[in-house]
Amino acid sequence: MALIQRHPLLTSAFISIGLIASSSLMAWDGLVEKQTFELENFTTQGGETIPEVSVGWEAYGELNEARDNAILITHFFSGTSHAAGRYGTEGEPTGYWDAIIGPGKPLDTDEYYIIASDTLVNLNAHDPNVTTTGPASINPETGEPWGMDFPVVTIRDFVEVQRELLESQGIESLHAVMGASMGALQAFEWASAYPDRVERLIPVIGGGVADPWLLATLSAWGAPIRLDANWNEGDYYDGEPPTDGLKEALKLVTLNANHWEWANDTFNRDWVDEDRDPAKDINARYAIEQTLDDIAAARAETSDANHLLYLVQANQAFMTGHGDSLEEGLAAIDAPTLMLYSESDLVFAPEGVRHTAELIEADGTEVTLETLEGDRGHLNGVLFIDQASDTLRAFLE
Amino acid sequence: MALIQRHPLLTSAFISIGLIASSSLMAWDGLVEKQTFELENFTTQGGETIPEVSVGWEAYGELNEARDNAILITHFFSGTSHAAGRYGTEGEPTGYWDAIIGPGKPLDTDEYYIIASDTLVNLNAHDPNVTTTGPASINPETGEPWGMDFPVVTIRDFVEVQRELLESQGIESLHAVMGASMGALQAFEWASAYPDRVERLIPVIGGGVADPWLLATLSAWGAPIRLDANWNEGDYYDGEPPTDGLKEALKLVTLNANHWEWANDTFNRDWVDEDRDPAKDINARYAIEQTLDDIAAARAETSDANHLLYLVQANQAFMTGHGDSLEEGLAAIDAPTLMLYSESDLVFAPEGVRHTAELIEADGTEVTLETLEGDRGHLNGVLFIDQASDTLRAFLE
Repeated sequence: MALIQRHPLLTSAFISIGLIASSSLMAWDGLVEKQTFELENFTTQGGETIPEVSVGWEAYGELNEARDNAILITHFFSGTSHAAGRYGTEGEPTGYWDAIIGPGKPLDTDEYYIIASDTLVNLNAHDPNVTTTGPASINPETGEPWGMDFPVVTIRDFVEVQRELLESQGIESLHAVMGASMGALQAFEWASAYPDRVERLIPVIGGGVADPWLLATLSAWGAPIRLDANWNEGDYYDGEPPTDGLKEALKLVTLNANHWEWANDTFNRDWVDEDRDPAKDINARYAIEQTLDDIAAARAETSDANHLLYLVQANQAFMTGHGDSLEEGLAAIDAPTLMLYSESDLVFAPEGVRHTAELIEADGTEVTLETLEGDRGHLNGVLFIDQASDTLRAFLE
Repeated sequence: MALIQRHPLLTSAFISIGLIASSSLMAWDGLVEKQTFELENFTTQGGETIPEVSVGWEAYGELNEARDNAILITHFFSGTSHAAGRYGTEGEPTGYWDAIIGPGKPLDTDEYYIIASDTLVNLNAHDPNVTTTGPASINPETGEPWGMDFPVVTIRDFVEVQRELLESQGIESLHAVMGASMGALQAFEWASAYPDRVERLIPVIGGGVADPWLLATLSAWGAPIRLDANWNEGDYYDGEPPTDGLKEALKLVTLNANHWEWANDTFNRDWVDEDRDPAKDINARYAIEQTLDDIAAARAETSDANHLLYLVQANQAFMTGHGDSLEEGLAAIDAPTLMLYSESDLVFAPEGVRHTAELIEADGTEVTLETLEGDRGHLNGVLFIDQASDTLRAFLE
C-alpha cells in the first residue's frame, strides 16, 4: 500500500498483483485449525506455580524464514483466539476480525503470520473450540476442578503464556501486537514488558490505565454470580452451575459494551407476550429484556462463572506490575502506537484513551489516535473495525 | 425578580424587601413536618382497587387564598418527599433540593406553596420519615404484607394520588410541577394528563420517552433482587429479606446515576486491605468496591426489595397510557417547559432529552433546554441544581 499512496499511477497494477497473489496456491484459504500449546508448569507473576497449562491457538498465513513477520492478536473479555477464518464448511461464522485479516486484507495473510491464542481463564471454557486453563480445569494434584483455589492470574500472565507460545515457534519479536478491549490491555502489557520485541502496538477500544470507573464496572459484572446460591463459593462443578447469575453477568457485559444508540435503533417497546401488558402484570416483560436474556443464555452455555470472576480480577489488576506507577508502565512503551477508539465507548471512556496516549507520548513515542464510528459504543472496535483498514495497512507497512 | 431583571436600578430596594420578608414571622423557618394523606380506596390505571392507601407529604411556604401559588415537587427513583428543609435540629441533613427551595431562593417559600409527596411503592419503605403504600404494606383483606400480589402501579398512578392530595387542599391548578429523573416522568405525566392544571413544566434530567435503553437499564437494576434466594418470589416479610440482592441493585443504581468523571475524580486504586493484593488474592478487593458496597448497604437499610421491582415496572411503563403513542402523550403538553439536563447523563441520554423537547415543541409549545454541569452525570440534576437558579427564578415568575 505504500506504493499506492506514494505513486497513485501504480494503483491498478498493484491491485492486479494482489488479486493474483490471493488466488494463488500460497494464499490462505480461510480454513482454520485450532491447535493446543502446553506448558508443563507456569509460574504466575504472583509467584504461584500452575502445573499442566494448556491454551488453544490458531494462525493465518505463513511464518517467514526470518520469523519476523508475526502479528499477535490478543482477544477481548468474552472472546477467544478465533480472530479470522472459519473452522469448517462455507456458511459457518468467521472469526471476529475476519474483515481485516486475510489475503489482501489490511492484516494481509500473504505477507504476515497472524497468530492468536486463548488466554488463561478464558470465559468460554466449555466451548469445544477453546482450550484454556482456569478454575474449571482439573487440578492434577487433586484430580478435581480447581474452583476458587486456582491462583489469581493477571493480564501480564496471559502475555507470558503467549511469549512461551511464540518462543516455541522461534518467534522472538513481533511485527505488531493488536487487540480489542481486554486484548488492548494485553497489547499494552506486551509493549511495556518487552519494548525490544514489539515493533508496533495497536490497542483498540482500550485505555492503558485501569481507572476506578473500570474497577467498579468490572466489579458489577462479577456480582450476579456471587449472588446465585448455586455458585457455592465457586464449588459447583459436581452440581448445578450458577447459570442464572452467569446469565445476568453476561447481560451486564452485553449492555455495557453497547450503547443507547444501538438499543434505540434496534429495539422497540414491544412486549414479550402481546396479551401480557407490563403496566398491569408484574411478571410481564418487554421484548428487549427477553432478547438480552436470550443472548446471555446462549453465551452462558459455553461460559464458566468462575472464569468470569477471574477475568474480572485480571482486568482490574491490569498494568500494576510495572514499576511504581501505571504511568511508569506506559512510559516504558517504545513501539509506535496506533490507538483506535470509540467516542461513545461506555467501558473505556474516550477521555481515558486520550490520557493514555499522552502518557505513552510523553517520552517521544509516536502515537496516532483514530476514532471508530458506529452505534455500538465499545463494540464499534470489534464489529466495525474495517473502517480503519487504510490506516491499519499504512501503519503495518 | 421580574423587577430586578427589567429595572436594574430597583435591585437593592427589592433585595431589602426580600430580606425583611424572609426574616419576618411569615417566612418559613426551614423546619419540616411530615404529614400523611390517606385514601380509603385508590383505583389504578390498570383497573385494580387498592384499599387504605396512604402517602407522606411535606410543604414549605403558605398556600395563598386563591390557592394558585402551589408548586409540586415530584421525587426521583430512590428519593422521598423530603425536598427541602430539615425535620429537627440544626445540623441535620436538609432535603435534596434545599439549595433552590426556601425564603428568597428560586423556589421562593415567601411566594409559593411548595408541596412534595412520597410516591406509591416508594423505595424507602422502611424509612421512618416515609409513608407509602406498596408490596411491604399490609393488605387489609389478608392482614399480611401484599408482596408480589400488590397491583402494578404506574407513574400515572403516582400522579393520580398527588391530584387527590392537592384536591384535598383545594388546589385545582399548579403554578408549576418540577421533578428530577423519575420526578421528571411524573411531571411529564401531569402536564400531559392535565394540561389545564399545569401552568409550567420543569422536567430535570429526564426524557419523555421510556426508550429501549431505559427499559434494559431498569431491568438490570431489578435483576440482582430476583437472583437472591431470600427474595423467594417476593415473599420474605416473615423471614430474611434479600438484602444482598437489594444492595447489588442499589450499587447499579448508584453507578448508573454517576459518571466516570466522578469515579476517577473521587477514588483511586487503593485496596480495601493494604496487606491483601487483588492481583494475588481472588477475594481481595479495591477500596472503590467497598465504598460502593457501603453506600448500597446504608441505602438498603431503609429500602424494600419488592418496592424496587415495582418502581422498575412503573418507570418502564411510563407515558404509555396517553392515546396511541408516546408522541401523542408529549404533544398533549401545553405548559411552557423548562428542561434541565446533563450532557454526561448515562440514564437519560442527552439525545433522548433533546428529542423529547422536539416532540413537545412540535405543536408550538415553548420549550427551553438548559444544561447542568458537573462530574456526577445524571446526578448533576440533583446535586448541582443551584446553577440553574437564575433560570428557574425567571421561568417561575
